[in-house]
Amino acid sequence: MKKAINWNVLAQDGDARAGVITTRRSVIETPVFMPVGTQGTMKGVRFEWLEDEMDARIILGNTYHLFLRPGAEVIRNFGGLHKFSTWNRSFLTDSGGFQVFSLTDLRKLNEEGVEFRSHLDGSKQFLSPEVSMEVQAALGSEIVMVFDECPPGDAGIEATRKSLELTARWAKRSKERFDKLQEDGDDSGFVESSELSGKQALFGIVQGAGHFDLRQESLEKTVEIGFDGYAIGGLSVGEEKSVMYSVLEYLAPKMPVDRPRYLMGVGTPEDLIEAVGRGVDMFDCVMPTRNGRTGGAFTSRGKINIRNAKFINDNTPIDPDCGCSVCRRYSKGYIRHLYQAGEMNAATFISHHNLAFYLDTMFQVRQSIKSGSFARFRSEFLSKLRENEDSSG
Amino acid sequence: MKKAINWNVLAQDGDARAGVITTRRSVIETPVFMPVGTQGTMKGVRFEWLEDEMDARIILGNTYHLFLRPGAEVIRNFGGLHKFSTWNRSFLTDSGGFQVFSLTDLRKLNEEGVEFRSHLDGSKQFLSPEVSMEVQAALGSEIVMVFDECPPGDAGIEATRKSLELTARWAKRSKERFDKLQEDGDDSGFVESSELSGKQALFGIVQGAGHFDLRQESLEKTVEIGFDGYAIGGLSVGEEKSVMYSVLEYLAPKMPVDRPRYLMGVGTPEDLIEAVGRGVDMFDCVMPTRNGRTGGAFTSRGKINIRNAKFINDNTPIDPDCGCSVCRRYSKGYIRHLYQAGEMNAATFISHHNLAFYLDTMFQVRQSIKSGSFARFRSEFLSKLRENEDSSG
Repeated sequence: MKKAINWNVLAQDGDARAGVITTRRSVIETPVFMPVGTQGTMKGVRFEWLEDEMDARIILGNTYHLFLRPGAEVIRNFGGLHKFSTWNRSFLTDSGGFQVFSLTDLRKLNEEGVEFRSHLDGSKQFLSPEVSMEVQAALGSEIVMVFDECPPGDAGIEATRKSLELTARWAKRSKERFDKLQEDGDDSGFVESSELSGKQALFGIVQGAGHFDLRQESLEKTVEIGFDGYAIGGLSVGEEKSVMYSVLEYLAPKMPVDRPRYLMGVGTPEDLIEAVGRGVDMFDCVMPTRNGRTGGAFTSRGKINIRNAKFINDNTPIDPDCGCSVCRRYSKGYIRHLYQAGEMNAATFISHHNLAFYLDTMFQVRQSIKSGSFARFRSEFLSKLRENEDSSG
Repeated sequence: MKKAINWNVLAQDGDARAGVITTRRSVIETPVFMPVGTQGTMKGVRFEWLEDEMDARIILGNTYHLFLRPGAEVIRNFGGLHKFSTWNRSFLTDSGGFQVFSLTDLRKLNEEGVEFRSHLDGSKQFLSPEVSMEVQAALGSEIVMVFDECPPGDAGIEATRKSLELTARWAKRSKERFDKLQEDGDDSGFVESSELSGKQALFGIVQGAGHFDLRQESLEKTVEIGFDGYAIGGLSVGEEKSVMYSVLEYLAPKMPVDRPRYLMGVGTPEDLIEAVGRGVDMFDCVMPTRNGRTGGAFTSRGKINIRNAKFINDNTPIDPDCGCSVCRRYSKGYIRHLYQAGEMNAATFISHHNLAFYLDTMFQVRQSIKSGSFARFRSEFLSKLRENEDSSG
């Protein structure tokens, strides 16, 4: 039977893996950073730059946001999220669960799903495993995420166990509904293909917070259902970095080697390198664009903030070691002026650079794994990163 | 003696002229629309698009804004506005007068100049013909505007006469200071050139509101001083369109044929066509980007507003007759979604299209003048423009 995605490990260096995910719409080299296009666009950066300059092969879309606005039916009318947005490479869509549990205050959770009020207009809305799969089928993304419950970062062990058990039941229901939707041809992104099924892929999510035994239990329950890939949820939600790293160290090597591993919502450049070293293949995070909008720039020598007065007369680029079109042309002094003057282009330029920096960093990570020099790369990268950290940032 | 700019009329069709302005930094075909880059950037649109796609040869910078922030000294430190902003084609800078007289409430006008409070921090500032020339020399623009007084649109005949007499005295002082600055090498944009002087050009401004005799008087006083080009100020400041058109009809043919004629701060696509038909060569206006930021799009079939609910499921481009990179790719339905979702890219896309539409319209205007078919072009363009005017805009 043809698969929705192909996954090949090309090289392994310690626990770090370099591989290739082939979806119906693009070939994705891993470890990969997936820029987050929450509302079907990249905040402040045109797709043209992501395609032609950065060569991003996959981006995220947020089910919660698109479900509320413009709504699944509008996007289905356009023929899916690719045709609506014109991004014709791969999309990964989250399930909407994370946003419901973190963005909205008013919600009622039960076995069936979660009722909540839209943050846009206060209207009553409902998401469940089934609804999430239906919305993601209308979006037609290449990689669909199961609908999971995300307990608060500080939930105790019993609450966390109850939550992961619910997540496991929801994962099963997600898969059942997902399979039916694929069968019924409800996936708006379907592509005829000789190599692949042309259908959507479905990823499971391992929860369990900082508790190793719960992580183990959640992993087993999730793998038992069987997915095209496995994600690690519930990290980078406020816990100490050492907790995240130790969970990854414990969990990642136990995850199926024949499936990609995706660490959700993480993180800083340092986090990415550390997680790759522990066996993670895929990442997404809003930091490059969110920081970009408030003047925060990631550089090979640490984070800086363009608002800093010391940049007023600085005619050097954000990162002299970066080859992106912003760093090849524009100076910190000029971008600082644009930021101070309230010009949108400030956010555009910094977001662009940040995305380019993240994607280029992952390119270097892949090269180092393939040449068996990841450990040296990691150590040099991290020490350079700390060289000039701007505490004002 | 080598000149700062060369001006050649290539073709004349009725009163409409097609020509070429050669500055030290670019060759500008006229009639030309000059996009307004108030703070040294184009709001929402990267220079790369203006250069590579739209092929804009000249943009505006605003002396008032750049004088207050980041300040002339910062820009001089960078080597001028071209080096600071990286726009390496021509800049025209206004004198700051218009903004002082229209943006700031607190001002004290006397023969020497005008004292005002910065709209940014309330600090006391002073602009005069001399200061304006000094700031524009620090910016290093290709075309410098004299410092003029702009009376309110509803000023009576006596107030208008007094004002244009002050403007004439200021024009003379502007030229004296300007010449001295060029002599002293204070122009930060100087370029070695075998054909041109490599220095800045200076344009005079004709005032006189809607009074023909005052326009005539102002024109005479200005031409007597002698400038590289002549601008028409004080139109499109709230008067009836018919007043603007009749002033242009009266004034433009009397202006020196051997100098470019620049209508300041105008206007809609219709205004541009009408003014070209009356002999104007140069235009600038914030409308393409200002409207773009509130959802207003100029199209060959009239203005539309992307917020209109009728566009929700519309998968056609903003203007099906437009070949810009936004119209070739993105739909009204998608851009409307971005607007509603508060995404910067909505403003980016509409501003980009609007600028492309203005520049392409002027390209067509030039072609029609050169082929002697401007009258037919004007009539077809204007009737198409009214075909589908969206009164909701």
